[in-house]
Amino acid sequence: MATVDTSLPAEPTGAAAALAEAHAQPHALKLYGGWFCPYVQRAWITLVEKAISHQYIEINPYNKDPSFLALNPRGLVPTLAVSVGDGEKKPLYESTVVCEYLDEQFDSEQNGERLLSGGPYERARARLWIDHITGKIIPGFYKLLQHTPNKAYSLDDARAELHKNIRSFVNEMATEGPWFLGHTFSMVDIMLAPWAKRLWLIDHYKTGGTGVPESGEGDETWDRWNAWFDAIVERPSVKATWSADERYMLAYKRYAEDTTNSEVAQATREGRRLP
Amino acid sequence: MATVDTSLPAEPTGAAAALAEAHAQPHALKLYGGWFCPYVQRAWITLVEKAISHQYIEINPYNKDPSFLALNPRGLVPTLAVSVGDGEKKPLYESTVVCEYLDEQFDSEQNGERLLSGGPYERARARLWIDHITGKIIPGFYKLLQHTPNKAYSLDDARAELHKNIRSFVNEMATEGPWFLGHTFSMVDIMLAPWAKRLWLIDHYKTGGTGVPESGEGDETWDRWNAWFDAIVERPSVKATWSADERYMLAYKRYAEDTTNSEVAQATREGRRLP
Repeated sequence: MATVDTSLPAEPTGAAAALAEAHAQPHALKLYGGWFCPYVQRAWITLVEKAISHQYIEINPYNKDPSFLALNPRGLVPTLAVSVGDGEKKPLYESTVVCEYLDEQFDSEQNGERLLSGGPYERARARLWIDHITGKIIPGFYKLLQHTPNKAYSLDDARAELHKNIRSFVNEMATEGPWFLGHTFSMVDIMLAPWAKRLWLIDHYKTGGTGVPESGEGDETWDRWNAWFDAIVERPSVKATWSADERYMLAYKRYAEDTTNSEVAQATREGRRLP
Repeated sequence: MATVDTSLPAEPTGAAAALAEAHAQPHALKLYGGWFCPYVQRAWITLVEKAISHQYIEINPYNKDPSFLALNPRGLVPTLAVSVGDGEKKPLYESTVVCEYLDEQFDSEQNGERLLSGGPYERARARLWIDHITGKIIPGFYKLLQHTPNKAYSLDDARAELHKNIRSFVNEMATEGPWFLGHTFSMVDIMLAPWAKRLWLIDHYKTGGTGVPESGEGDETWDRWNAWFDAIVERPSVKATWSADERYMLAYKRYAEDTTNSEVAQATREGRRLP
């Protein structure tokens, strides 16, 4: 996101601050991020999952460093600088592109199993459902969070749309195991994790909250969702890239009131494709 | 696209008809397509470029075969059925997913070079610019084609937006041409080819047309674009998947008048993310 309200704290806190501090030393691989941004968290989780050596650089979104803008004139985070002092390599951005690059490039034994695993067919299926997350579930998250009484759609409509798109996703999950693919944690899980980790903000700010039934109180689809959800919010890489809860509460207040100027929020408000 | 106006002919014509006829025999790999749909053409070009044995099945978009809807309840084309009589494999859809699958799965000597070539970094760069095509250039194409005098934006605004997004793309092209990567034809070229092949429809239907200068009459960026454009519209795989010009003229008349009910057109009209 290019613009964030200037009242936001400019640095990560909590677990994410410790992670950033542990990766503050200069390194050829640099992630330029923002603690608040869920798209950044996708890339950050991938770095942690694969134990990739890197340098983390927090970008103050309302006072972007000129050297960052020189690197990526679009000024978007996450941006990944893949070499230092090598004028030939341009930065990478777009969270799905960055994560898939990290998965392909860092593929030695210490990096563990591939996150986009299997053969061409399995990768294609994963990409289809990553597309569903990005194109259906995430816009639904913002539509519900940014609902205000003057909208053309009702809160219940927004909730029903989010439920429908989560349920289609859950119906594609392996029956056993907590993850999308079952016992194997994968890129599909990472792609949704940052918004799963932020769902409590909808409970906090919206009457009726997400409306997702507790396990045993809904049907099998919701039970399966809850098993995935409980696992993802406790995943060490997800927790390690998380700042203090109250900072998100502050940051998302303007989303809930639909007054933020972030690109994602503006796109949601205007019904445009998310950036 | 899910809906196409019922006045459209239901079968390919011209070169595409000959190609479909040559691939009418039953085969384990089936492309369900529509002659008119540019997203289908992406997949079709990929099959031709890689000389992949397959069966082509034309789906009549206004009278979808029940067996097709049983295969893919979303009813979208392109849909790729990757095995026959094997209940375990679900179909693939979304043109970028289908094309990348074909490129990865069919990788023997007879299939030629990989279309998404190079290492992780080169593939990431290609994916970034494919994303630019899908998220910026294609929406701009429809915005200009569907312009009508009662729109909130002017024809010149729509043209300027398309120019801006084409120029960003061209500025990433290798200097020596004709292709995006220079001498190597790649997936990036395929992803834009169907809309390049349809640009004349904007010249036909809109006052002032695309407004792209002829070579030598604009700047170097337009010269480079024209070199790419001249090569892509003459690429054998692009021509082989093309029906008779007058059929497209008929098909796109309702786009130009902004009265078609296709999903792409509706999304453009409402400012939503393209499906």
